[in-house]
Amino acid sequence: MQGERLITVNGKHFHYSWLRDNCLCPECRDPNSFQKIYDISEAQSPPEPLSVVEEEDTLTITWKEQPIHQSIFPTSWLMAQVNELDTSEESLNKITLWNKAELEKEPILRHDFPNCDADMWVNQLFSLGFTILENIQSTQELESLVCSIGPVYETYYGRLIPVKPIKGTKAVDLAYASVYPLLPHTDFTYLNAGRVLQFLYCVEHNASGGESIVVDGYRVAKDFRQNYPEYFNVLAETPVHFKQFDLHSQYYLCNINPILKLNQKGEVSEIYFSHKNCKPNLKFDKIESFYEAYRAFFKYLKSSDYQYLYRLKAGDCLVIQNFRILHGRTAYDANHGTRHLEGIFLDWDYFKGRHHFKQFQHLY
Amino acid sequence: MQGERLITVNGKHFHYSWLRDNCLCPECRDPNSFQKIYDISEAQSPPEPLSVVEEEDTLTITWKEQPIHQSIFPTSWLMAQVNELDTSEESLNKITLWNKAELEKEPILRHDFPNCDADMWVNQLFSLGFTILENIQSTQELESLVCSIGPVYETYYGRLIPVKPIKGTKAVDLAYASVYPLLPHTDFTYLNAGRVLQFLYCVEHNASGGESIVVDGYRVAKDFRQNYPEYFNVLAETPVHFKQFDLHSQYYLCNINPILKLNQKGEVSEIYFSHKNCKPNLKFDKIESFYEAYRAFFKYLKSSDYQYLYRLKAGDCLVIQNFRILHGRTAYDANHGTRHLEGIFLDWDYFKGRHHFKQFQHLY
Repeated sequence: MQGERLITVNGKHFHYSWLRDNCLCPECRDPNSFQKIYDISEAQSPPEPLSVVEEEDTLTITWKEQPIHQSIFPTSWLMAQVNELDTSEESLNKITLWNKAELEKEPILRHDFPNCDADMWVNQLFSLGFTILENIQSTQELESLVCSIGPVYETYYGRLIPVKPIKGTKAVDLAYASVYPLLPHTDFTYLNAGRVLQFLYCVEHNASGGESIVVDGYRVAKDFRQNYPEYFNVLAETPVHFKQFDLHSQYYLCNINPILKLNQKGEVSEIYFSHKNCKPNLKFDKIESFYEAYRAFFKYLKSSDYQYLYRLKAGDCLVIQNFRILHGRTAYDANHGTRHLEGIFLDWDYFKGRHHFKQFQHLY
Repeated sequence: MQGERLITVNGKHFHYSWLRDNCLCPECRDPNSFQKIYDISEAQSPPEPLSVVEEEDTLTITWKEQPIHQSIFPTSWLMAQVNELDTSEESLNKITLWNKAELEKEPILRHDFPNCDADMWVNQLFSLGFTILENIQSTQELESLVCSIGPVYETYYGRLIPVKPIKGTKAVDLAYASVYPLLPHTDFTYLNAGRVLQFLYCVEHNASGGESIVVDGYRVAKDFRQNYPEYFNVLAETPVHFKQFDLHSQYYLCNINPILKLNQKGEVSEIYFSHKNCKPNLKFDKIESFYEAYRAFFKYLKSSDYQYLYRLKAGDCLVIQNFRILHGRTAYDANHGTRHLEGIFLDWDYFKGRHHFKQFQHLY
């Protein structure tokens, strides 16, 4: 079916402006980089077809241009574009929200890294937001794994970040102070780095206490939304300052995000929560309602109903979507035993980008 | 003045919830990391003072708690918090919007790196969004400069990214195809990496053509908003897909952002524009208005009124706020001469964080 500004193929509408902009011919799209060359701003007016020919497998449009130009679109490619309209994290990949009780019903949470099928842990990561890899031999092996996916996301703590009490020097982060429990939080709220994947590798752990905690922030947010819709809206609509003052490295870092960031569809897509860094410099009339909502949400996060506790042993690696899963640990006594983890980060875009390459490469 | 939920100091309101949450004592805020320890979600009800004592330099609040707790706030610290309420990029640092004619009136745009006052180029970067450093001896010297500020933002192209035609192999990006002019764009629109600082260092340039182009996106957006408020709103409200399919590295990268991202105050804070990567997979009813706005904005970006052209010579380094300044180059003939740049990136947060450290360290 053809209308003035659109064509319908297999019941799906395609706009002429979009079709002209996305012409697949080698003059319009570079066949090596697949990047767009055609510059739609040079066209005198919105694109108009001279003729449109629909065949079984292709749509051929001849454009009213000087000189005339022809675009040929495989029908399969057009149909795939319709699906891509809706490329939120949630729709492209199966997501299972969990609380503690539900998680403990799941059969497999740990993967023997040297021998397991990589699809297993990758799928679990997409589905649950975290996974546990076992029997990684060394930090070198861990770094090789990360580098095989994408470049390490290096922070000012370094490429590999030691997580252990620093004896004799002053801790620059509460994460290094074993005496405190580390409440569920996301990392790097004070940097523009929410969407990273965190690898927390256990080098040694013989201290008593110091269990690792993970919490499904998407699940908590969903329940919170249901029970406290007004508080939910406050946390979704109030941009909050997260700050880190580091005397040693001479940074005063600050990033501003709402605690619950929604995607286009109104679903929670990113969670920013780090009480130790949260410094809500809000206008006065916003403060009361913000703190009410904040206190209520914080109580949810601290509830044992949501917390999955796991004791990492040497060779284990907890892999966490930092924008969905909050993590923490119980307190421990650093004077009796050692708990030494090493953290390394990867931009989630690369992990997702490698995964999507496999899903979509047939279209190129 | 005291009200039920607030206290007024020097005419500024402070809410008790906020004051209790931000108590500066060593039990509530770790004196080494300056991170918050006090957990406001544990309080039974919103904080209430037993007594409030205002002296010339301090505010002392005794809280109705078991056991009672006392917070002492220096008045200077409280006043600084009021200023920090408003920590947008634009308000903390002087920003000067420019077009080509206005820029050419400015006296200094280039800085002799080995001998200049660093404050000069740093201030220019905050003010104009770009600067030019001259007489950098080598990529090693450039990398040392970047590393002295913060960790290199490494991409899948590497730490240092060669920008030159790749002979004999297929270019993975149009940036390497000298035959095309490179229209003004921002980098890494397809990654969650808009807020980076780009260093574009010239190793060699003796080709004819290949002038570097910079455009002040904030200025263009401001003029565009004035002349086409409806189009402006479309670009600010429509999330757009930016995609990069890389057959060699096996990534299908995608990030979604509006072309004009506004901050809390409704000002443009980030610009995402890369025509070669823009693939607006929009709902059908949004397409017509989007393309109209897009074409109009693209014409503004291509207008010579906004473009500052500069021919980089060996040793020059163009430093660009990627979220404000669009960059590009004119076409050139790679068969007659060489144009070899090297790019390196730094998260803007570190640059800003070092700067703000100097501004705010007296408060810690």
